[in-house]
Parts: sequence; structure tokens; C-alpha cells
Amino acid sequence: MGLRYLDAGESHGKAVVVIVEGMPHGLVIGASRIEEELARRRLGYGRGGRMRLERDRVEILSGVRGGKTMGSPVAMLVENAEYERWREVMAVEGDIAVEPLTAIRPGHADLPGALKYATRDLRDVLERASARETVGRVCAGALAKALLEKLGMRILSHVLSVGGIWAETGGARSPEELEGADGDPLRCLDPRASGKMVKKIEEAEKNGDSLGGVFEVVAFGVPPGIGSHVHWDRRLDARLAAAVMGIQAVKGVEIGDGFRLAEMPGSRAVDVLEYTGDAGFVRASNHAGGIEGGMSNGEPIVLRAAMKPIPTMKKAVDSVDLVSKEKVKAAVERADICAVPAAAVIAESVVSLVIADALLEKTGGDSMLEIEERLEAMWRRIRDF
Amino acid sequence: MGLRYLDAGESHGKAVVVIVEGMPHGLVIGASRIEEELARRRLGYGRGGRMRLERDRVEILSGVRGGKTMGSPVAMLVENAEYERWREVMAVEGDIAVEPLTAIRPGHADLPGALKYATRDLRDVLERASARETVGRVCAGALAKALLEKLGMRILSHVLSVGGIWAETGGARSPEELEGADGDPLRCLDPRASGKMVKKIEEAEKNGDSLGGVFEVVAFGVPPGIGSHVHWDRRLDARLAAAVMGIQAVKGVEIGDGFRLAEMPGSRAVDVLEYTGDAGFVRASNHAGGIEGGMSNGEPIVLRAAMKPIPTMKKAVDSVDLVSKEKVKAAVERADICAVPAAAVIAESVVSLVIADALLEKTGGDSMLEIEERLEAMWRRIRDF
Amino acid sequence: MGLRYLDAGESHGKAVVVIVEGMPHGLVIGASRIEEELARRRLGYGRGGRMRLERDRVEILSGVRGGKTMGSPVAMLVENAEYERWREVMAVEGDIAVEPLTAIRPGHADLPGALKYATRDLRDVLERASARETVGRVCAGALAKALLEKLGMRILSHVLSVGGIWAETGGARSPEELEGADGDPLRCLDPRASGKMVKKIEEAEKNGDSLGGVFEVVAFGVPPGIGSHVHWDRRLDARLAAAVMGIQAVKGVEIGDGFRLAEMPGSRAVDVLEYTGDAGFVRASNHAGGIEGGMSNGEPIVLRAAMKPIPTMKKAVDSVDLVSKEKVKAAVERADICAVPAAAVIAESVVSLVIADALLEKTGGDSMLEIEERLEAMWRRIRDF
Amino acid sequence: MGLRYLDAGESHGKAVVVIVEGMPHGLVIGASRIEEELARRRLGYGRGGRMRLERDRVEILSGVRGGKTMGSPVAMLVENAEYERWREVMAVEGDIAVEPLTAIRPGHADLPGALKYATRDLRDVLERASARETVGRVCAGALAKALLEKLGMRILSHVLSVGGIWAETGGARSPEELEGADGDPLRCLDPRASGKMVKKIEEAEKNGDSLGGVFEVVAFGVPPGIGSHVHWDRRLDARLAAAVMGIQAVKGVEIGDGFRLAEMPGSRAVDVLEYTGDAGFVRASNHAGGIEGGMSNGEPIVLRAAMKPIPTMKKAVDSVDLVSKEKVKAAVERADICAVPAAAVIAESVVSLVIADALLEKTGGDSMLEIEERLEAMWRRIRDF
Repeated sequence: MGLRYLDAGESHGKAVVVIVEGMPHGLVIGASRIEEELARRRLGYGRGGRMRLERDRVEILSGVRGGKTMGSPVAMLVENAEYERWREVMAVEGDIAVEPLTAIRPGHADLPGALKYATRDLRDVLERASARETVGRVCAGALAKALLEKLGMRILSHVLSVGGIWAETGGARSPEELEGADGDPLRCLDPRASGKMVKKIEEAEKNGDSLGGVFEVVAFGVPPGIGSHVHWDRRLDARLAAAVMGIQAVKGVEIGDGFRLAEMPGSRAVDVLEYTGDAGFVRASNHAGGIEGGMSNGEPIVLRAAMKPIPTMKKAVDSVDLVSKEKVKAAVERADICAVPAAAVIAESVVSLVIADALLEKTGGDSMLEIEERLEAMWRRIRDF
Repeated sequence: MGLRYLDAGESHGKAVVVIVEGMPHGLVIGASRIEEELARRRLGYGRGGRMRLERDRVEILSGVRGGKTMGSPVAMLVENAEYERWREVMAVEGDIAVEPLTAIRPGHADLPGALKYATRDLRDVLERASARETVGRVCAGALAKALLEKLGMRILSHVLSVGGIWAETGGARSPEELEGADGDPLRCLDPRASGKMVKKIEEAEKNGDSLGGVFEVVAFGVPPGIGSHVHWDRRLDARLAAAVMGIQAVKGVEIGDGFRLAEMPGSRAVDVLEYTGDAGFVRASNHAGGIEGGMSNGEPIVLRAAMKPIPTMKKAVDSVDLVSKEKVKAAVERADICAVPAAAVIAESVVSLVIADALLEKTGGDSMLEIEERLEAMWRRIRDF
Repeated sequence: MGLRYLDAGESHGKAVVVIVEGMPHGLVIGASRIEEELARRRLGYGRGGRMRLERDRVEILSGVRGGKTMGSPVAMLVENAEYERWREVMAVEGDIAVEPLTAIRPGHADLPGALKYATRDLRDVLERASARETVGRVCAGALAKALLEKLGMRILSHVLSVGGIWAETGGARSPEELEGADGDPLRCLDPRASGKMVKKIEEAEKNGDSLGGVFEVVAFGVPPGIGSHVHWDRRLDARLAAAVMGIQAVKGVEIGDGFRLAEMPGSRAVDVLEYTGDAGFVRASNHAGGIEGGMSNGEPIVLRAAMKPIPTMKKAVDSVDLVSKEKVKAAVERADICAVPAAAVIAESVVSLVIADALLEKTGGDSMLEIEERLEAMWRRIRDF
Repeated sequence: MGLRYLDAGESHGKAVVVIVEGMPHGLVIGASRIEEELARRRLGYGRGGRMRLERDRVEILSGVRGGKTMGSPVAMLVENAEYERWREVMAVEGDIAVEPLTAIRPGHADLPGALKYATRDLRDVLERASARETVGRVCAGALAKALLEKLGMRILSHVLSVGGIWAETGGARSPEELEGADGDPLRCLDPRASGKMVKKIEEAEKNGDSLGGVFEVVAFGVPPGIGSHVHWDRRLDARLAAAVMGIQAVKGVEIGDGFRLAEMPGSRAVDVLEYTGDAGFVRASNHAGGIEGGMSNGEPIVLRAAMKPIPTMKKAVDSVDLVSKEKVKAAVERADICAVPAAAVIAESVVSLVIADALLEKTGGDSMLEIEERLEAMWRRIRDF
């Protein structure tokens, strides 16, 4: 059954809750480690007011004892500090005292969700479709990331482009190179590009507009042979693509050189293989982004994703009222202008969950003790192959 | 449990077999309909010798009676006409008389698979990792496609680029526009580009090289509200991304304008919504590619994927022997130079499977009778919303 | 993906949490409805001190707005009133100040769990293995039960035997007959037997012993054709068996006349079929317990389960210390003497979850509106068949 | 994703097909091993004509090379020798030349299936509901059993009762005791009881009646800690119950002393624990049937199931015509009088699949090499605990 999780919670509801089932026994974890990731989720220049207000505190409700996982499901709860102000709108019981929300926001779940549920109150849809929900995925991902780090792996990210401004970066070959990203206002490794991005965001803010961008997630230290070529739904690339495409506003995912590979001849696209006494099988390049045949190949796993600009903008968008069908303007006062740096952090989380799940399929095992032993044996066998 | 399937079979084994479980009762289907799709899988200029040799015949072994599905699992078998010639290499029982294969082909499953299984015979890996396996997915997809067509939907594809040559095409707004693709040597809608692609392929052939490209799949007629925003793994975009990224050699997937959306400001990226008496809610554009909030929104679902050039080329690639660790050349005599047109057909299959699965979640039901009634009521409710 | 849930929480931890994903939009539900079920879970003569102390309050944290489900995941939290007293033992963070628990209790998860996790503290296992966890399943089941009730179905239970004392009851043919069970100290419909059971329990209490028993769950109003014969894991009987056997201390499950059917000749075991103008297809008996070919057949679904006596008793059981390997006595001061009436309530919950899941496969749909319409059409078609 | 499989095929269709996905690399397997199990599925006094006619030959179509599994999905095909005679009735394509079948057989899937599919031809249902389908499960189970045997485990079965005649057997403590079962006409270990069962069957045959019974499956050598207590659907008992209840005609499942445990006081129901230098932790009895807290505990896993008498009998049963609603007699010329010995063999198969799946969760690993190493380490750790 692997590593599985369910998350729950509405944007202005009481709390976001997540249960992670399938974590082994004996992993060191605590609220502060998870809150670090939640804080990273608020990073980035161009965030709206809410991000500055939020200060997410996680409460671990189960599955952890004495600072270590017990093997039982880990439940985590992040209360919504704003709930009191929203109680009328989001009351769990009793009638809702406020009018239904009917001004459809294009580009969001609003209209398809309303048609799906045959509801005349868009709030029933948009509250859950909101990116607030990713708090749950980041909590879950923090567990997975802690697991991977304990096992010598690192999952990191950085921003490649915002609003068409591209960073000039060579492919990262070590975790250290990426660690600096958090220090930059846009989590970008190219300070010149970052400066331009800031300006672009300021301009967009002035225009009441929003901006998307492209980010990269890199997983270091993943042993070869994770995932599988034998059935499509076991492939690591397929699972990573689902997890990252499943993040709100992500519209594209690529592995390694991705779409650029489609333009190269095979002779240039291939990662030539060598064998050295020290490092074993090595590749001169990593066009494949660490995945061949649906499996990790020992190189860093590189994944890039495109985030569309958030469709909620101060600048009014032409739209329609769900009920009256009259023309309306879908405008919002407070919103992120650019959330690409945060999306990258969320992507780290879901990538960590996928890799941890696939890794646990390979190692099996119920305790960190067992898993560490087996991973060590795996590495030994690979080295001695 | 939805619509699920398992496929089996090695490239030079006896047969490819697939079992599709979860099809409703009463769908008209026959071998010829499936073989049409299998034939389309062999399309495209630049295919290797095998494609010209293959003439795939499918045998329906179960689940269909009197030309209609019974509701029970549908098993389909496609024998491998070449098996006799490969019997020594691929004997099911008894010892294998030939030497193990040890020259690693970079870019394939070979090395990670060998490390995964700790095997010293690459054939144990590459036989299953081969794209021959997609015969099974195309058979399964043919059922799903027949289901969707009966319910008024169409899943089509065309090639956008090969080796860096791009077709000039506006976004397709009707199935009719795409139907012509099969008539073109590269399944491309722009004849000028197609001509250049042919030349590019001839050039690559001369150089012993290979080419990738980008293709597009479009699903017409899908009702709004399929998929869901409530949990990441229910999202239609996430599921489509997994299915398409799960095809051999695909390294990137995007929905709608995908990576280009990351460069646009929100004000241009949004699909402005209108309401007309005749057509109900309509959008002036389809940047979102028919998916908002993880759900179909009633517009055509547009998905694009990047296929890397096949890493098996006549031109020898530097590589290593799995066992001796000596330098070798990974060369192959007979291979596709370009398989993008075929990959697009395979993608139609897996997209059909995902959409059919998500649609059946919405309609429920065990028989075409029941499903057709419910879909009609859904459309009526949407029109009268 | 159907109706799925994860529950979390340790016996003396902070809380039990459950997330139910896949509930449709528009079901009326509130905390009081769930708490009613939680209160029923504490019913029954012979419960230990804890049951009398507990007064479970549920907090709905998400997925419900204005008294109705939103379609998004429903998170429910039941705090553990006793946590403060257990904080030292069950601290989430920081070191555990108390000694590890090492006296193995036979009949519990203790020893296999310790070997599984390679842990030397049994508390890491037994805290989760405790039946306190069923609070989560009862909360989840309360949602499913509310759904089924809104759709005209009833899931009820009663106790058939305790410690070898058997109720004399004919098979229940109407929900009304079973509603009275909660009024009896043992949730038993035969007052004479109930009186004897009470005495048996008092006797056991005196001896420091414990008692098991057999209970029955009956589902009324389930339409025929739910579940499926086409694949084993779709069968309603298989799914019910898993759910009920998955309750702590349940060691046997039977459908209809179950093990007694194995002793009857076919001519007596079969439920003869008739057709009447009024009621359509009817059966003269219900030996099959409402399930034929893995599907509901329109008769009440009848399931019986055997609960072993709780292996924690005042009377000391011979056992071993996990670490020292010395002989110990596994004795406990406070424990239930008989929990059969409560197990029956828990079984109602998991049976409701299975039937709701299977029903939603048949109806599909995202809202109660849609589901009610479809169910009505299903009943109409069945009546007019 | 574990070990999963789909099987397909109708009773009088072309073939039964099964695909098993998730088998590790390097397991020795061949058609003869699988056919042995298929032959055992035909065992037992009291079988109908078909059993004597059938001589099932399996063809392995994929996933096995040189007598060993490749790690890729294993497809197996068992042709139906009788298909030619049934071609008119079961034609895959073209119209069905014979009249629809409308005489409902009570006790079978016929009526609920017809209502489910809204079909007026019962053949669309009963062809798949037939126990012929279990050929697929036995093929799949043969792989799982071979895996378990290679790892030192044994899964065996015997018949406990037929038509109310009970064998007198103590609980089996070694595989050797059970190996003899196949030699008995009823796969019963008590020759006196077996003799009486034969007579009982002869009597039933004379009366045109049928008989059910109870069988037992025992799994030896399963290490402790397989399955889990942390979530209901991970519990080994829940998974075993589903698998065995999912066999046609099984109406009850119990683990260990099962329903008898419900009558014992806790002091007698508990398996007292001891520690010996040689054998480590041992239990003086095995009332729990080798499962505590949803996990294997190192004792033999003992499971019993009740099979109802097959409802198809020469003696005509009162029934109704599906279409005309007139009274009919549901009679059949050729049928099994008693299939309990065969059901036990089928149960061995599904029990093997469940245990193999749960074991692979614990060991992880992609090759027999890796799994054997890890299992050895597990046993070592358990011994040295």
C-alpha cells in the first residue's frame, strides 16, 4: 500500500489536516522541522497579504512519540488563525448567514466545480480548490523529506523564470549549489535575473496583474533502480509528473531537458556512459534528468514545472455571474502577484513523497533500522556490481 | 476501483496480452476496431524495419460476446509474429542458449534495470522496457476510445514538431480538423512543415541519428466537471500527466498553453468567460487547455508532450559493458529514426483511458444504457444551469 | 477512487483523527449525529472503567459547511480527555521519561509488532493496536451511515451470543425489530438471553476473566446489483469480510447462514425465487444473507462476526518479558470484560462504509441531488424489469 | 503497488487469462508447476462431468525467460477445450444465434447480475460468475506459492467437513501432516470421516442434491510481523478474509479457532507465551491461528472457510423466468455435487497471493536474491531479539 496520505481543509475553514500512513518506525521528526518547510512555503517576493499574515504552526496529533515516528499514521493539524473572522461564511453547522458567492473567477475551479456539484454557491468549490490546501501536502512532504535526508538524499528547488525573465544557470550538480536559493527574494540562483524578476513583479503589481514562471526541483543521492519500467504506473517519471501536475496552477512538467530534448538529434540527447574505478558507472551529461526507462539512474533527478500566472488579479477580468448569467468583473483585492518560489517548495514536498514511496517499495521494511541496513547493502551491491 | 488494466509481454516474447477490467456492459466492440488503432500505431515516416514487418492481429479472449462487452474483464492477445525467430533467446522454459547481452545502451532502461534486478543479462530488462509493450496500452485504449466515442467524445492527435521543425497550426477547435492527420506522413497538419520533417528524417537516417518531437492530443466533447479539485490524485491534469509521461521516451507534458503560460501575464493568460443563450457558458480562448482546478471545463482538453529522440541509433554511442566494464559501442542495426507520430497515437490511447475512467466515476453505472441516460441528464442539467 | 479514509491516533495520544475522502456534496451532517454513534460505541454491560469515563466529542474540521458536506475531504477530530495524564508516557517531542513497557500481553499485537519494528518498547505498538482507534472508524462510518439513511437504507446490529449464551432470535426482516437493541444492556433482542449474559459477565468479572461473543449486522434497503461478480476484489462479500475482520478481536465472519450452510444440502440451502405483481422478484428465505454472486440481491444483507474474548484480563496470564525473556504475568487492572455490544456498533460503521462505497460505484455522481435521482431511476428500472 | 493481478475469462469462452504484476526477478517457475496446481483444482470425489473432461494446460505468455521470472508481468493462458462446442453461444463477434437464457438459478449471480446490467440474457452474467474463473486465480496463486516455498513457507489445505460429516483432526502443526490430503478422495485427513463423506455424496447424488462443507488452509513458516496493526486494510486477517470470502460459494471465514473463540472465556482463549533458548518465543497453543493484532505471529496461520452447497442441482429448484416472470424449474444436468476439496485448493492459491503480497511489503526488493538475503536477516534478527 506504500506511503499514502489524505489531506483536508478549506482555505478559510478551521484547519488544514493531513494523515500520512505508511511511514516506518523510528524516524526522528518534530514540529519545528515541519514548520521550517511551512515557512519556506511562504517565501518569495510578490506574495499577497495573507502570506505575510500567516504563521503556520503545526500540531502533531499522532504517530510520533518521543520525537520519533511510531509506524502508525501521523496526523498533523495546522489551525487557520483567520477562522474566527470567517466563521459566518464558513460555519460548519447552522445556516450560512452570508449570501452565496456567484461571480465566477475564470481560470479557477469555480465554474467546472459548480457544474460538477450542481451548486449555486461557488464558495463550496473554491474554498477547497485554494492553494491553502498545499499546507497539508507540505506537512506530509516534510516527513518524506526527513526520511530521505536521513538516508542521504536531498530534495531541493530553485526558480528558473518569472514572467518570461530567465535565470542563467547551468544544471545544478550538487545540493550545496541549491541551498542558497532560499536566500534570494525569488529563490533564484542568478542574482541578476532575480533583480529583473523583482522589477517585473513590481510592474505587474502596478498593473494589477500577476505572473507565472518555471521552477526546478532536483533530487540528489537517489540510488539507481527506484521506480520501474515494467508497468506504466510504476514508472518514477509518471508518478512525479502526476504529483507535480497535481499542484494548483501547474500546467507543464518536464524531466531533465524535457521539451528541449524533442529538438535535439539522438546523438546529442544521449548521456554517454563511462566506467571509472572510483565512481562506477557515470554519465558525462544528464539530459535524461536522472531517469531512464522509468527508473532513477543514479544521476540527480531533475524536474521542471511551469506555473501559470494566478488568475486572481486586482485588474478586473471579464466574467459571468453563475446564477443571473449577467456580465461581472472577477476582481480580488488581496492576492499573490507571483507564487512561483512557493510553488517550488510545494513541489519539493510532493517530489519527496513520490521518491520516498518508490524507495520504500525497493527497500521494504518497517523501521529506519531495517531500511538503513538495506539501503547500505543496495549501495554496496551497486558499487561492487 | 474504476477502469483498470494490466498489460504484459516482452518485445520478442510470444505475445502482448492486456486485461481491461471495469468496462460497462453493452459497448459495441470488435477486433477490427482495435486493429485499426494498432495499425495507426505503426504510422509515420521514419519508422524502422519492424514497423513495416508487423501486422498486428488482436484476439479478444474474453469479456465480449455477440459483439458487445459483457461487463466482465476483456482480455486481448496480440501474438508476436517474430517469436519463432527469437525462440532461442526468449525461451520461456529451459536454459537460454545464447550469451547474455551486456553492452549497455545509454538512454534506455538497461543499466538502471540491471542494477535494480542485480542481473547480468540486459535482455531481462530491455525486453520489457521496449515500446513494443505499448501494443497492450493501445488495445486497452481502443476500448476506452470506443466508449467515449459512443458517448459523443473524440480523442485525436497530431504532430507539432520533429527534430526542431515546427508545424504552424492554430489550436484545433473541432475534431474534423484533426482527422486529416493520419493522411500525412508525419501525422502533421501543416504540409509545409511535414515536408521539412521528412527531409530532416532523411538527413538523420543518413547520419545514423534519430529525432524526437512534440505532439498534441485533443479530447473533444468531454463534459465539464470530470476529475476533481478536492484531492491531488483525483485531478484530471495529474492523471493525464502520469499516463502520458508513462509512455516510453516522453520527457515532458503540458496542458493547454503549458510552459508558454509561465511567460504570460495573468491578464493575457486567462480565458475570459461569457454566457450566451445558445451555448451557455463559453470562453473566448482556451489557454487552460480545457482544465481548470483539475477538472474538465467543457472546452477541448489539449495536452502536448515532448518525445526525446530514440537513444538507439545506427551511429554508435559510447558506452560500457555491464560485466567487463570495458568501453563498448552501443549500436543497433534496425531502429526507428523517428517515432513521434506513433507516440501520439499511443498517447491518444492512454488519454482515452484516463478520461474514460474519470467519466465513469462521474456517471457510475454498469451498462451503456445506464451511462448514456445519466450523461444525457448531466448535459441537460449543464445546459439548464 | 471511491470512498476512502485514513484514521490516526493512539490510545493515550492527543486525539483520534480521521479524514474521509470521496463523500458527495450536499449530505446533511453534524457533530451530534456522529457523537450519537460514538456514544453507541460505549454501550454494553461489562465495559471497563474507561468507557464510563469517556465522553467523546467530535470536532468537524473540514468538508462540512452550513450543515452539509461540501464534496471536499471531511476531517474529524476526537480529543483524548485523558491525554494530560499520559503526557509523560506519550510525549510527541522530547525524551520519554518513563521506562519502556516490556511485559508482553499474549493475544495482542505486542510481540509480533515488536518483532516487526525491532522495538524494545511495546508501547510503540500497543498504543496504536488498541481498540481506541475504532473511534476513527465510527466517525467515518457515521458519515456513510447518514448517506445510506438519506437514500433509504438502514444499517443495524444486535448481539447474538456472549460467552456461549445464545439469543433465540429469528432472522430480522425489518429495521424496526433491531432498533430496540440499544435499549438492552447487551444490545440483545432476547431479554431472557440478555439476562443470562449479564450473569455470565458478572461471573467472569469475579474470576478476572473476559468474554467474547457473536453479533449480527443487517443492512436493509440496499438495491440489488451492488458489488460485482466480475472480479474477486469487487465482490461485496469479500469487501464486507475484510472490513469486519479488520476490527480488533474479530476472528470470524459469515454472510447469511454462513457456516451452517456448509452443513445443509443444496435443496434446503437455496432461497427459492418467486415473482409477485407487487413486490417483483422475492425470495421465500434469506439463507444467502442478501448476497448472491458477490452482489446484493435486494434481501437484507446479513453478516455475523465472532469476537474473541479480550485477552487483557485481571486474571494474570503467563507471559514473557520482551527484553529479559523472564517469565512475567500479563495482568491489567482496568479493562473491558465484554465488548461485544460495542464491536457490533463498530461493525455497523465499517459495513456502512463498504456499502456506501459500493453504492457510489453504482450511482456515480458528485452530489446528493444527482445520487438521489439516479437511485430513484435504478429502483424504477428494477421494479419495471 | 505490491503484487496485483487481474484475471479474465468466461466459463465457456475461449480461455481464462491472468496477468500477475509485481513478481520479483529470478523465481524459478514453469508451466508444469502451475499445471500441478490446476490438476489439484480438479480433485475431489463428487465432481461433475466437466472436471473429468478438463485437462488444463497453461501457456506462459510473458514474464518468464529461461525458466525464471523476469520481473515483468507474467501472463498465463488456459484455453478452454470445449470452446468449439460453445462457439454459437459464446461468439465474440457477430450475432448470437441462440436464444437468451432466462431461467433464473436461485443462489447464483443470475438475478442480481441481470438487474445490475439491465440485461435480459442471463448468460452475460453467469458465464463470468462461474467457478471456471478460479483457474485464473490458481495460476496466479501458483506463482505466489512457488515464491513462498522458495522462501521456506508452505501453504496447504484439507477438508474438515462435508454435508455435516466432520473429520476428527487435531490442529496440524507441520506441513508433512497435511501433504497426505491430496491422496484422499475428499482431501480429508480422517479416513473414517472421508468414508462417510463419500457415502453422503453418493446419497446426495441419488437425490439430485448437492453438499457444502468446511475446509482449512494452513500457512507454515511465515515470519512474525507480516501484515500490520496500524490501519485496518493492512491487517493480514482482513486481507485473508477478503481473498477467501471472494471465492465463489464461500459464505464464512474464520481465523484460528474463530467462532469457537467467541464461546470461550479469555483465560482459555489466550495462547500462553514462553521463551525457550532454542526456539525463542513460543506459544503453548494456537487459538489465534497465527495472527495477533492483524500480524503474523510466527505460529502456523490457520484459516477455515464454509462453502455452501452449489445451488445448481439435478433436483429442480423453484424459480422464475427473468422475462416472462412465469414459474420455472432451475435444473441442470451436469454439475458438481460437492466441490469442497477443490475450493480448498483455490483457497490455498488466494491465501498464497495475500501472504506473498504482505511478505513483499516487508522485504521489499526486486529480485529473489535481494529478498532471500533480507528474509534471512529478518529471521536472524528475530532469533537474536
